[in-house]
Amino acid sequence: MQAEIITIGDEILIGQIIDTNSAFIGKALNSIGVSVYQITSIQDDKQHILKALAEAEANADIIIVTGGLGPTKDDITKHTICEYFNDTLVRNASVTENIKRLWRDYVKKPIQQVNLDQAFIPSKAKVLMNLVGSAPGMWIEKNEKVFISMPGVPFEMKALMQEQVLPKLKIKYKRPFIIHKTLLTYGMGESMLAALIEDWENNLPKHIKLAYLPNLGKVRLRLSGKGFDEHILNTEIKKQIETVLPLIKEVFAGFEEDGDLEVLIAKELTKSNKTLSIAESCTGGKLAEIFTQHAGASTYFKGGIITYATQTKIDILDISESLINEYSVVSKQVAEAMAVQCRLLYKSDYAISTTGTAGPTKGDAEAEVGTVYIALASKKGVFSQKFELGNNRARVINKAVNKALEQLKKEIFKN
Amino acid sequence: MQAEIITIGDEILIGQIIDTNSAFIGKALNSIGVSVYQITSIQDDKQHILKALAEAEANADIIIVTGGLGPTKDDITKHTICEYFNDTLVRNASVTENIKRLWRDYVKKPIQQVNLDQAFIPSKAKVLMNLVGSAPGMWIEKNEKVFISMPGVPFEMKALMQEQVLPKLKIKYKRPFIIHKTLLTYGMGESMLAALIEDWENNLPKHIKLAYLPNLGKVRLRLSGKGFDEHILNTEIKKQIETVLPLIKEVFAGFEEDGDLEVLIAKELTKSNKTLSIAESCTGGKLAEIFTQHAGASTYFKGGIITYATQTKIDILDISESLINEYSVVSKQVAEAMAVQCRLLYKSDYAISTTGTAGPTKGDAEAEVGTVYIALASKKGVFSQKFELGNNRARVINKAVNKALEQLKKEIFKN
Repeated sequence: MQAEIITIGDEILIGQIIDTNSAFIGKALNSIGVSVYQITSIQDDKQHILKALAEAEANADIIIVTGGLGPTKDDITKHTICEYFNDTLVRNASVTENIKRLWRDYVKKPIQQVNLDQAFIPSKAKVLMNLVGSAPGMWIEKNEKVFISMPGVPFEMKALMQEQVLPKLKIKYKRPFIIHKTLLTYGMGESMLAALIEDWENNLPKHIKLAYLPNLGKVRLRLSGKGFDEHILNTEIKKQIETVLPLIKEVFAGFEEDGDLEVLIAKELTKSNKTLSIAESCTGGKLAEIFTQHAGASTYFKGGIITYATQTKIDILDISESLINEYSVVSKQVAEAMAVQCRLLYKSDYAISTTGTAGPTKGDAEAEVGTVYIALASKKGVFSQKFELGNNRARVINKAVNKALEQLKKEIFKN
Repeated sequence: MQAEIITIGDEILIGQIIDTNSAFIGKALNSIGVSVYQITSIQDDKQHILKALAEAEANADIIIVTGGLGPTKDDITKHTICEYFNDTLVRNASVTENIKRLWRDYVKKPIQQVNLDQAFIPSKAKVLMNLVGSAPGMWIEKNEKVFISMPGVPFEMKALMQEQVLPKLKIKYKRPFIIHKTLLTYGMGESMLAALIEDWENNLPKHIKLAYLPNLGKVRLRLSGKGFDEHILNTEIKKQIETVLPLIKEVFAGFEEDGDLEVLIAKELTKSNKTLSIAESCTGGKLAEIFTQHAGASTYFKGGIITYATQTKIDILDISESLINEYSVVSKQVAEAMAVQCRLLYKSDYAISTTGTAGPTKGDAEAEVGTVYIALASKKGVFSQKFELGNNRARVINKAVNKALEQLKKEIFKN
């Protein structure tokens, strides 16, 4: 049971947007036992779409197409799909109703003819009703294969995928179980890690694969198993994990499937009824944003303060000017003072702070670009760590965020 | 002159990571006049890699492969490339030196044999020296076509692309000019916009294409032109823009190529020597992060405060408890008080605030999920706007950020 994902749109090929839809679809298909053979991003061009559909039909059982269904002239997907299936476009009454409802309840502006015309679909297609947008999804079967077309707007595609495509695929096909279990490790390089677990890796059974995914100071180890008995597969993977964990216990931080680090931290804080606040300098709000992107953050997250300018550290966080003058704004002493003051200000159980030079220039600091101090304050006191994170701004910020999460997780799971 | 990008890695197909490399490469190639025909993401599998290379060779002149070059066992790319070119792997002395240097200067741990073995490359390949990682880039020519292989770690790929691949491609091929100019519009839907500019669009010359890119309350209109005379092309596109601008002046916010909204705002604030601070509730640090991701933010950005818990609005921003009780925490009055107090606290020229319910539940607020107030304070006073942004948490946060940027830009460019 294999799928191919085709994304249509010059905006992807010229790098104007990043294709996030395919990752979402790939993950969703895996969750119901469907492997993705290939992801192909192609031009808004009839011949190219026809060629990609034919190739995908040869490779896969399920072909999922996103993009190219908007109301405007640059969208040729629907006509091309029609041609591919030797079909004609017909106006669909229930899609027309849906579009009218959307305009009446949400858009509240005069409806355009181009929007009403979005109700034209190939006669052979079943409608996947798009309740949050005017472009309908389509489901077309041909020789036991299924072609699914969805709009490219991410939240419309996601709703269609979850509410209609996955349930329908589950009914139509018998599928194996695919289980991924990903061990998050921090602080050791890929090759060191590989050397540590070499014997274990060589003894993995054939239907369980291991992959290394290194990124910014963390390496993810992904075990992927495939089989028709979910229970046996789970037991096998569990056994493999029990064998490898003692080998990597120094650097193991959790399982990705349990959520990213901030999710693990959030769960633990919520469970233990503890609160967090954040004082950021070089990470500029990114650390707070990592927590607040998830629902339920208000249960444990009191808030944060971004003291970007040096003077605001003095004025708002009440860091003493002489401390900054003596040790410089990027220093262990200032990081620790920030965490302590932030904890008092927000009356939180934990406070974490970052101060560093993200680059490309040093700003007010004496420290080299890439130097970051991260401090953590709790009722037990305060401690900090120094990091050298290179000279690429985005990398320094992201690595500092990862290091802060790592430090915080270690501390709160200790208690 | 066409290119195909191939990304290798199961992690992309199972949706564990989002492929950001291809967008970067696509944009970089466009900047030197090379069009991308297709982006193909494939499995870590020998037969699949061979098939993709053969298909890409048929489609394109330049084939760029990323991924699959790490030190561990899941990487088979290099062996497969060797097979594709009937070649053998040989140890490259300068790559060996580079790896030893990296370990001596940065890793500072014992070097592993698997890392030293990364110096093996196909004998026909020219090395693209990777100065920031152990996996070398490779450049292989065959019948006037060129195959380029780079590691998948984004910052390594980016350095190779900018410092080696682009300069070499510029020398090797005569290329046309590709010019994209993208008009950012806010506050009008795709179909309304299309109706407004229909006549103009129908009269565009054939070598200038228009695309609509709608996303979260903004629609980007991209004009793409291709030709061998840069001057003529620029003049034509400029003329088209002069024609369309009066039609969309109500919703036009700037050109994407001049930078995103926050970049335009940052430039203007820096130029006029004004400062900004931010008080966030529902956007949780995202608005500050948008600004601080760019170098130079410290010139104008004083800092921000995230008052996530209601009590912190009272304690830290000094919003009166009775105001919150009377109007609720998500209200015009509280948004405006947040902006005013933030401006005083940070001593900034402008302060912008957000308060709303990102969902999925209402929290402390009385307002419905998706209701967001955004206020802007300056020496002229304070004003605010109310928005209803739907019921998807990520969407509410991102739309609120876009609305705040839009509001801020309007205000600072007015002065």
